[in-house]
Amino acid sequence: MRGDPPCKDPCAGRRQIVTFVRQPTRAGVRDAADKLAKTLPPAPLFTADFKGMTVAFKAESLQPMGAFKVRGAWHRLTALDGDARRRGVVAFSSGNHAQGVAWAAKRLGIAATIVMPHDAPKVKRDATMALGAEVVGYDRKTESREQIAARLAEARGATLVPSFDDPWIIEGQGSAGVEAAWQMERIGLPAPAHVVVPCGGGGLAAGIALALPDARVTVVEPEGWDDMRRSLEASWIEPVGANPPATACDSLQTLEVSPLTFDVLSRRDAQGVAVSEAETAAAQRWAAERLRLVIEPGGAVALAALLAGKVRPEPGLLVVLSGGNVDLDAYARVLAG
Amino acid sequence: MRGDPPCKDPCAGRRQIVTFVRQPTRAGVRDAADKLAKTLPPAPLFTADFKGMTVAFKAESLQPMGAFKVRGAWHRLTALDGDARRRGVVAFSSGNHAQGVAWAAKRLGIAATIVMPHDAPKVKRDATMALGAEVVGYDRKTESREQIAARLAEARGATLVPSFDDPWIIEGQGSAGVEAAWQMERIGLPAPAHVVVPCGGGGLAAGIALALPDARVTVVEPEGWDDMRRSLEASWIEPVGANPPATACDSLQTLEVSPLTFDVLSRRDAQGVAVSEAETAAAQRWAAERLRLVIEPGGAVALAALLAGKVRPEPGLLVVLSGGNVDLDAYARVLAG
Repeated sequence: MRGDPPCKDPCAGRRQIVTFVRQPTRAGVRDAADKLAKTLPPAPLFTADFKGMTVAFKAESLQPMGAFKVRGAWHRLTALDGDARRRGVVAFSSGNHAQGVAWAAKRLGIAATIVMPHDAPKVKRDATMALGAEVVGYDRKTESREQIAARLAEARGATLVPSFDDPWIIEGQGSAGVEAAWQMERIGLPAPAHVVVPCGGGGLAAGIALALPDARVTVVEPEGWDDMRRSLEASWIEPVGANPPATACDSLQTLEVSPLTFDVLSRRDAQGVAVSEAETAAAQRWAAERLRLVIEPGGAVALAALLAGKVRPEPGLLVVLSGGNVDLDAYARVLAG
Repeated sequence: MRGDPPCKDPCAGRRQIVTFVRQPTRAGVRDAADKLAKTLPPAPLFTADFKGMTVAFKAESLQPMGAFKVRGAWHRLTALDGDARRRGVVAFSSGNHAQGVAWAAKRLGIAATIVMPHDAPKVKRDATMALGAEVVGYDRKTESREQIAARLAEARGATLVPSFDDPWIIEGQGSAGVEAAWQMERIGLPAPAHVVVPCGGGGLAAGIALALPDARVTVVEPEGWDDMRRSLEASWIEPVGANPPATACDSLQTLEVSPLTFDVLSRRDAQGVAVSEAETAAAQRWAAERLRLVIEPGGAVALAALLAGKVRPEPGLLVVLSGGNVDLDAYARVLAG
């Protein structure tokens, strides 16, 4: 964490203790990038011109399972020793993280259990089960997925794989930044000077910040869910407020960021930007028409910030498109405008 | 052409003379692939499992300008000598070929003139002009674009760049097959055993057939526009019939294939398959949901043939997704089903 809390700290009871947790490092990000390079082709990087500037777009939507989450899952699961691998992994997520963990577990022959709400979209449940993972359902209203997952992990001796509050996960996601820098150099673009990243829990943004120590970092969240922005401004973790507005960005609905991700971004003086639902929808349309990419709402917020003029085009601007898993009906409505 | 026409040839007056035209060759395709490799990253290749078989998808929709057409344009324009380059190029197309020629011309500093109907979509007109090309309009009902283009080329001493009836264009498009074979080998897939390709004039299909001499070749067309299929069965070029049905596949509405493309495909015993509009729409939805790719109708017909069971999954199956330029409103309606 950066600095101390205000003298009369209203959040004193909530102070996060991070002393005993391994911190994610740049060396860890490079290690993750080396491991990923042996496993997956780089997610494609595209460019487009904005006011005479060439902007680079990193299309994490084209990863297996449609999001960057395979990166962190791969780095975490490959770091487990033989005994831990035999005992399996447990994760809770109704979305991209679940698929990422299930994908990595399948390739490594590790048993994966995913805790997912009973009302999760059938397509996501089926996709997770198709990867061989066991899906354990829970009731969103009466049960805590964290507790269920922790109980399962304890009972089986399995490793719990958090979606962002974990040094391996952060380092793994950061491999996207290493790859993008390689790709930008290869096509003659300047090194990344400013990277704009969608932010839920902040794992991807923190990892990329570690990967690119010379770049400015902007994290983008949906309006009303911009707790990382507020936290960075306050130099203290602030949760999402009560009754946050509805958002199409299901993958960014994190109620509170993690000390690990906050700390990395805060030390790097990262800035936060919030975008409206209409700006996100416009970005999804632009991506379909101009990049021929299907981008999910949460994956399009960084592009939305650029298109809405909240981030300025500049040489070395890198915009991350973090995922492409859409509900087709909702997506069709967005494209129809 | 393969064999002689039947004894009492009803098409005797239409016999094509190809003796004096250079034939496209496999060496030319390899040369084109080498040239493209220095200019563009390979278009990404994705995989998906069908009944336990891994099928490869070549995403030409992710090329600059959203289609494979940059390949042929680049191979043709780079083959022009300095004098020809100074005199410029002329092409007629309201779609992907226009953009491909304009893109290559801009990068090579060659003046490009594109003959396009007055009622072409504004977005395509604007995109072509944004690349610095001159757009010459014509009236679809009263004027012939071929004649206008030929007149312009003659008056300026410029080179006419056909969209498929040209050995360089065919060889250039074939570079997609060379690339795909490299990519399949790199990820441990068997060499292409069967390649399935959308077909308008047949330039892409013929080029890929030359690139992959050991693969079976299937060309896919919309129902009622399956003149290449009929021509291959008849061993003689047959045009599209009178009053063909409406199709969403604007990029495949070619009224007659070329002796150059027909000859290559016929010698290779290529097969033809026709798909319905509903099958094409289903393929566009599948590509959006499963590959997170925006694919235009004409670009999705080969995938449609696979999904409809008209092409069987097998080891080494390669399916080409040839373009991704959609009208957003029409695309939204397709996704909404």
